[in-house]
Amino acid sequence: MNPPSSLLLTDLYQLTMLQGYVEYEMEEQATFEFFVRKLPSTRNFLLAAGLEQALSVLEALRFTSEELEWLSGCGLFRRTLVDYLEKLHFTGDVYAMPEGTVFFSDEPIVRVTAPLPQAQLVETRLINLLHFETLIASKAARSVLVAPGKLLVDFGLRRAHGAEAGLLAARASYLAGFSGTSAVQAAPLFGIPIYGTMAHSFIQAHDDETAAFERFAYANPDNVVLLIDTYDTEAGAAKVVSLAPRLRQKGISINGVRLDSGDLADHAHKVRRILDEGGLADAVIFASGNLDESIVRQLVAAQAPIDGFGIGTRMDTSADAPSLDCAYKLEEYGGRPRRKRSEGKATWPGRKQVYRRYDADGRMRSDILTVEDDPQEGEPLIQPVMRAGKRLQASVPLAAIREHARNQLTRLPHALQALEKGPDYPVHVSTALRDLAKAVDEHRL
Amino acid sequence: MNPPSSLLLTDLYQLTMLQGYVEYEMEEQATFEFFVRKLPSTRNFLLAAGLEQALSVLEALRFTSEELEWLSGCGLFRRTLVDYLEKLHFTGDVYAMPEGTVFFSDEPIVRVTAPLPQAQLVETRLINLLHFETLIASKAARSVLVAPGKLLVDFGLRRAHGAEAGLLAARASYLAGFSGTSAVQAAPLFGIPIYGTMAHSFIQAHDDETAAFERFAYANPDNVVLLIDTYDTEAGAAKVVSLAPRLRQKGISINGVRLDSGDLADHAHKVRRILDEGGLADAVIFASGNLDESIVRQLVAAQAPIDGFGIGTRMDTSADAPSLDCAYKLEEYGGRPRRKRSEGKATWPGRKQVYRRYDADGRMRSDILTVEDDPQEGEPLIQPVMRAGKRLQASVPLAAIREHARNQLTRLPHALQALEKGPDYPVHVSTALRDLAKAVDEHRL
Repeated sequence: MNPPSSLLLTDLYQLTMLQGYVEYEMEEQATFEFFVRKLPSTRNFLLAAGLEQALSVLEALRFTSEELEWLSGCGLFRRTLVDYLEKLHFTGDVYAMPEGTVFFSDEPIVRVTAPLPQAQLVETRLINLLHFETLIASKAARSVLVAPGKLLVDFGLRRAHGAEAGLLAARASYLAGFSGTSAVQAAPLFGIPIYGTMAHSFIQAHDDETAAFERFAYANPDNVVLLIDTYDTEAGAAKVVSLAPRLRQKGISINGVRLDSGDLADHAHKVRRILDEGGLADAVIFASGNLDESIVRQLVAAQAPIDGFGIGTRMDTSADAPSLDCAYKLEEYGGRPRRKRSEGKATWPGRKQVYRRYDADGRMRSDILTVEDDPQEGEPLIQPVMRAGKRLQASVPLAAIREHARNQLTRLPHALQALEKGPDYPVHVSTALRDLAKAVDEHRL
Repeated sequence: MNPPSSLLLTDLYQLTMLQGYVEYEMEEQATFEFFVRKLPSTRNFLLAAGLEQALSVLEALRFTSEELEWLSGCGLFRRTLVDYLEKLHFTGDVYAMPEGTVFFSDEPIVRVTAPLPQAQLVETRLINLLHFETLIASKAARSVLVAPGKLLVDFGLRRAHGAEAGLLAARASYLAGFSGTSAVQAAPLFGIPIYGTMAHSFIQAHDDETAAFERFAYANPDNVVLLIDTYDTEAGAAKVVSLAPRLRQKGISINGVRLDSGDLADHAHKVRRILDEGGLADAVIFASGNLDESIVRQLVAAQAPIDGFGIGTRMDTSADAPSLDCAYKLEEYGGRPRRKRSEGKATWPGRKQVYRRYDADGRMRSDILTVEDDPQEGEPLIQPVMRAGKRLQASVPLAAIREHARNQLTRLPHALQALEKGPDYPVHVSTALRDLAKAVDEHRL
């Protein structure tokens, strides 16, 4: 699936540049690579995500007649450009790291090689998708690492930045190891398990809290998780206990309770005791409310008897690092490597590959960034995924991506599995790549 | 316009709650209000935005047959609920502050009164839209305040959180006073002016920088803004000067240059001198590259000769405050006021109004938050916008909203126009509202 999007979802400069490319028939093969220049100070690694949506955009690359009409009439573009765009579709090759792969700064995760206008036009939307899903998968992985064995559910849709952000955050966090999401549409779109029971308004709409619990249970007998903090958390737990026998007579079990405010560890301990003593040892405790990986880690460390966490706003906005310093840069045109040398923004030229080496125990030890045709010891991470505009294989099932990500997280060096900033992971630049950069700078290439 | 969105773009608990409401025929009138509990520590005020999209969602409130089929088959919902949803449309009333209005914590900006299931179901998407547009309009207003007379352009689409975020950020920043956006689709959707010329890749795809400039100018003769920092900024400016006469012979003027890296103030001074001495005094200097309102303020204070700024990632992600602590809360049901009392999350009950008082010079002095039927001195900010599911007037033109926002920003207290945190703006809670809260707590209502 891909949320619907228009080819006008691009920066104007892509089209003004295309006007130049088309005018001067600059349609040789161009290679662009997407990479992150520098990891945020609060990230030890990143998790590649968004390739599936990026490939869908490339496959569907067509301007509609409505869009072409608008382009014709807006006064900015020549007939030659509009005619060119009318026939445009994507005929290029794509190489990429599989989604769910751990990566580091300067390592390309997607490489597009196509006639220059095609590869250029898609820049904005490819960055938009790869950046956001990678941002969220990388953030979500931190919660996954600190809460083994816990149920983690994405609750972020409402404060995600728009509809697509909410849906793609559901996908990215699931890919990184979350159990599911509250966002209903993520189920039909991506096949992600959905979770949810009741809000405070359900309780408040009733005059009596117990009556609200009871009605909810009758209406949703297979999914009875009761929100108990609307007025007083422990009193709410006691009401749950006294309601349980009445429900049991009708064959309904209480699956759990949710806490959403106050000192969650303290409430969880008290509520656990109330539930256990009330014969509800099987009912789980689920916690939510401004959570992030740091708070979850504290709660886990405090052995708070919480079985699952709903993590919302801070994950879906990647609150401590709401963007990545990423780029999609021209690395080669017409068979010749290219390099941007702007201050503080220089890039490595050419088509690149990343080789990863592992310790004897299978943990990642170091990477080497090199040019494509410079085989190195280690595992090559970048693989062909699209040839002449066609996928080389069907979409990778989300379950397989999730399994790959799980495996990747277990193979991280210990120091990088922590929330605190660890040592920089070693990414070596090969002699061949350094030589190439030098040759480009000296105009020998 | 409203980006397409499905009614499944909601949290699962809205539907499980509806299953209860429908089962027990809880369809009395419910009033929910959207407000921000507490301003981010880096905001002196917020700017209301997103109402237009929220009203569009309410007007279009219908489940499609595909969605109903999915709901029927997913195993979570009873036939009675699906039948109910099949007939659902929005029949409620909406009151709101006009978009572009300055507001503060605890002040509702949108109030929905409708049969409980309707008002409940829309919670997730209404928050999703109102939160994000308000977030970005409030962030953008800060740049507008520090850069009077400068051209400000939204460059954030690529690192905005998904497609909708990029488009709504274009709208929200324009509303707050930006001149336009790089996001092409914002032009047909919202009528927003679009800006853009070239990226580094255009330069890099040529062997020679001057050749790239020249081709761009011929291909886009009405929009010649040349990016000069790909290799060496001042050398780039000199090339622009030497190219100018050749272009002039063909009737083409160079409109300006863009700087995107390095010490922007220093480069701007040097480039201005090169352009002026080269007979290009009319060419503007446009700057971009990780800008935000703080950097723009510094550049303006340093009297850097920069005429316009492209502001991207940090604005479109509201990087210093990527979310607002906002809520859409049940305040009344079946004619009786309601109040959530969860620790740290208590709300003011009932339908509310905000009155604003001004100083003699027209600047905002203080607000009073009260119940709807408690007239106070000052200007009532909340007005009816939808009755029985129908808008009371056509969409407010974006130009009018922008003018209203401009006026609002000029009427802010001086201390709140600064980027630094000023004193809290006084929002008084009326006796009538305090009495109502007390009565609800004491179960007298």
